[in-house]
Amino acid sequence: MSMAEGSSDDGAPASRPLTIAQLAELAQVSTATVSKVVNGRAEVGAGTRALIEGLIREHGYRPRRRAAAAPLVELVFHALEGEYPTEIARGVERVAREHRLAVVLSRPPRPDTAGRGWIEGVLSRRPTGVITVLSTPTEAQRRQLATRGIPLVLLDPVDDPPPGVPSVGANNWNGGLVATRHLLGLGHRRIAAVAGPDHALPSRARLDGYRSALDMAGVPADPGLIGRGGFLIEGGLAEAERLLRLPDRPTAVFTCDDGQATGVYLAAHRLGLRIPDDLSVVGFDDLPAARWMNPPLTTVRQPLTDMAATATDLLLRMARGGLPARHRVELGTELVVRESTAPAKR
Amino acid sequence: MSMAEGSSDDGAPASRPLTIAQLAELAQVSTATVSKVVNGRAEVGAGTRALIEGLIREHGYRPRRRAAAAPLVELVFHALEGEYPTEIARGVERVAREHRLAVVLSRPPRPDTAGRGWIEGVLSRRPTGVITVLSTPTEAQRRQLATRGIPLVLLDPVDDPPPGVPSVGANNWNGGLVATRHLLGLGHRRIAAVAGPDHALPSRARLDGYRSALDMAGVPADPGLIGRGGFLIEGGLAEAERLLRLPDRPTAVFTCDDGQATGVYLAAHRLGLRIPDDLSVVGFDDLPAARWMNPPLTTVRQPLTDMAATATDLLLRMARGGLPARHRVELGTELVVRESTAPAKR
Repeated sequence: MSMAEGSSDDGAPASRPLTIAQLAELAQVSTATVSKVVNGRAEVGAGTRALIEGLIREHGYRPRRRAAAAPLVELVFHALEGEYPTEIARGVERVAREHRLAVVLSRPPRPDTAGRGWIEGVLSRRPTGVITVLSTPTEAQRRQLATRGIPLVLLDPVDDPPPGVPSVGANNWNGGLVATRHLLGLGHRRIAAVAGPDHALPSRARLDGYRSALDMAGVPADPGLIGRGGFLIEGGLAEAERLLRLPDRPTAVFTCDDGQATGVYLAAHRLGLRIPDDLSVVGFDDLPAARWMNPPLTTVRQPLTDMAATATDLLLRMARGGLPARHRVELGTELVVRESTAPAKR
Repeated sequence: MSMAEGSSDDGAPASRPLTIAQLAELAQVSTATVSKVVNGRAEVGAGTRALIEGLIREHGYRPRRRAAAAPLVELVFHALEGEYPTEIARGVERVAREHRLAVVLSRPPRPDTAGRGWIEGVLSRRPTGVITVLSTPTEAQRRQLATRGIPLVLLDPVDDPPPGVPSVGANNWNGGLVATRHLLGLGHRRIAAVAGPDHALPSRARLDGYRSALDMAGVPADPGLIGRGGFLIEGGLAEAERLLRLPDRPTAVFTCDDGQATGVYLAAHRLGLRIPDDLSVVGFDDLPAARWMNPPLTTVRQPLTDMAATATDLLLRMARGGLPARHRVELGTELVVRESTAPAKR
């Protein structure tokens, strides 16, 4: 059968994607309705939308003319707080600009928000690709992207990446290992850890690195010295106040982000403990503020800007039809020793 | 004369914008070339581009069909550093989302960067409007936006806004005034100031507010107590080290951003001065980190997110054909008293 165009084709082999006209016939709706679904417009009922999406998943969709992707990279943040988004945006913007693409910043609404969904906006923009930061789109959203051929890369995802979805992160486990080894090397044995939320994989990996370093040094891990605070300053402050009030208080704390380390600084100050004389502190991230803390923070450097650039490179390779060479890219972490760590007092 | 369409019009009254065909005839180039200039594409020589831009300025340009603006707001940062861009992006994104617009993040290349210019990228995206942060597009860039009917709003511009270009900022002068009054009210008389670069108007206004507060209190301003450090931590640190080593050192410092205040904290620490016991410090901005500084920073709150939202509102009003009600909107600043200021010791 030739590839000649014609709206009179009745039926199509399973191997051949369907046109809008064919989808409309199968779904018994107008071509305008199919077109709205394909282009991410809102004014289609949920049932009809699901039916058409299902047909596209099953048979594929063949645009009349191959719709060109817009020269945009969609960068998706759930939260815009602090220095982290700036570091990420800088890396994405750098690579996007080299390829003459603009960066669209978007935020999914909270689930309870009424009105047009985030994904419809993305689909209507036809970006060259989508990068989600810390979060993972739902399965339905991922399918909607896939049926339009819009590639997706997860950057620093908190949860397990779904099978087949490429992600870029840092070597979190190794970061926890080297941070804790540094403290052990300084003679510390009562080393506390402040972890993130239980479900967050990067923080779990950091904590496991901490545990392995203790284990390899023959230092028994004390579960009472592990605080689970949630990320950021509030989490670090609350956990550190508890840990530093223990009768046999730790002489060092490893935290899972620089914000938590800031919280530990505040708790130490409130309790009259000096850093590093009375308490050594190691952070994680090396955000720009870390070197300006008082004292400057020893921390594990996560190369956020390079991670963002790597994710964008990977995305653009996929957009050009390439398959990702690897589904998980981890950039190395590195300990940056500053002035918040000192030898343990005997 | 009727407004009926027709490509056979020869010449056009000055009051009537020219079509692409008419511009091509006047410039003696092809319609394709005019179209490239109008749509911001790169492959047109600079001389030809200038000629066509000049004709458009003189006569106006009438698109064959009114080209719809893309549902995008272009948000332009020269630098992506620290928490400031996050606060701004959050405000723009909030209003843009309400109007179902996406936010494009872009950065003008440095002047020495080869290749396609930033403005061509903007023009090719046809955004609903452009917001530049801290900086002002060149006159040529502003004209290119104006000829396409793309509105422009300056957010927190460092330089004088050009006539007719709306801008949104904070009441910087008043911030300097209330900050200094607060220190005067605590009994301080030797009050230093760390200003930004000489040309930066927001910082100049803050410094003038400081001077007025001193003057109104009958305290002579000592030019030796005014440091011009450039913004951010490095600037504050260098100036504070000089000021705090003066024989008759200040008992309080007013800084023109929170970064400078962080630098003052570090300088005080290096010199063994305690905050606020030996030195009171007031910052400017109230970025999220300010309340986590040690001690928490007394600072002038600049409502950055609200300023960004206001700029976006103004931009969208202009995009709908409205004229800006005012060309300069200033949101109020507000002193946030925390723990870095204390009564002067007698």
